[in-house]
Amino acid sequence: MKDKTLFIEHIERFTRKLNAAEQEGILSFFTFHALEKKTHIQEGGISCGILCFVLRGCLRSYYLKENGLEQTLDFGIEQWWLTDHLAFSTQTTSDLYIQTVEKSDILCINPVNFNLLLIKYPIMDQYFRIIFQRAYGAAQHRLKFLYKYSREELYFHFEAQFPAFVQRIPQYLLASYLGFSPEYLSEIKKKRFS
Amino acid sequence: MKDKTLFIEHIERFTRKLNAAEQEGILSFFTFHALEKKTHIQEGGISCGILCFVLRGCLRSYYLKENGLEQTLDFGIEQWWLTDHLAFSTQTTSDLYIQTVEKSDILCINPVNFNLLLIKYPIMDQYFRIIFQRAYGAAQHRLKFLYKYSREELYFHFEAQFPAFVQRIPQYLLASYLGFSPEYLSEIKKKRFS
Repeated sequence: MKDKTLFIEHIERFTRKLNAAEQEGILSFFTFHALEKKTHIQEGGISCGILCFVLRGCLRSYYLKENGLEQTLDFGIEQWWLTDHLAFSTQTTSDLYIQTVEKSDILCINPVNFNLLLIKYPIMDQYFRIIFQRAYGAAQHRLKFLYKYSREELYFHFEAQFPAFVQRIPQYLLASYLGFSPEYLSEIKKKRFS
Repeated sequence: MKDKTLFIEHIERFTRKLNAAEQEGILSFFTFHALEKKTHIQEGGISCGILCFVLRGCLRSYYLKENGLEQTLDFGIEQWWLTDHLAFSTQTTSDLYIQTVEKSDILCINPVNFNLLLIKYPIMDQYFRIIFQRAYGAAQHRLKFLYKYSREELYFHFEAQFPAFVQRIPQYLLASYLGFSPEYLSEIKKKRFS
């Protein structure tokens, strides 16, 4: 139960204090899962049925490239939401896979419960409005960086912005997220020290 | 006034019917502007003070690259919102410029009024939750395309998805949006017909 408090705290940070009944009521729309490393939560090629909140650990979303290799699209660590947001909100097929990178505790909600939650607790519209507004803003910045920086600069910029995160996740996944090969990432890192 | 109805219709499409008092009340938080082509609405390098809704016309956001050239980041046509969403929501400095591409009618709101609007009309939290959720989802897909496609494929994919839009906007801006030079865009288009 301690873990779930992190979610309530996150809601309260962006909205207001919730009473005990509200806390319990809101949590009742979610399912809790303690998952081992490398567990698949959502497979690609089917309707996107899940929105995940990370209590502890790390998730990633990826799709398969034509050559069969995995391209990591997003990471989600503590207090971050992860899904294919367009497919989830329009209930369409998604080609994204969602998988745990580390042993993770997560809260999940499906689209039907998501809509019911928002009807019963309008405060959650305020919460998700702020969450999506900032996440959208962050995605805009990421797009800008992809245009703005060379692949090498991209890595150094990312490392400067998120040093703890770069330490935490496997380097081949970081390379995949930045859109280059693990070999290229090693080269960049070597070059810095030479 | 006819134009402003487009905004009310857009809210109602994602929420519920608004009564006359609500319509008037919500609109009172916005300012209306009829702007000529190539008018700057927001300059880069200052606090992001404006969120724009396009009633008619087309806006774009761009930043200046180190070489002084403009890199288009986003376009906004009818019933689309445009700003630097992270800078707007956190009230920080933005390096984005916002400019009209065509003669445009827009509704604008500043961060203070945005917060007051949401306090007075919680229905707008529902509206913006859906708007930001979908826009965030669309940005995720755009990121995916940037990883997935070559620059040439990017153009053809974009043209197939948004044919009317490709016809509508100046080709040099389209090239800038896709991250390549106008010359390269001409080459791609010529190649197809050869």
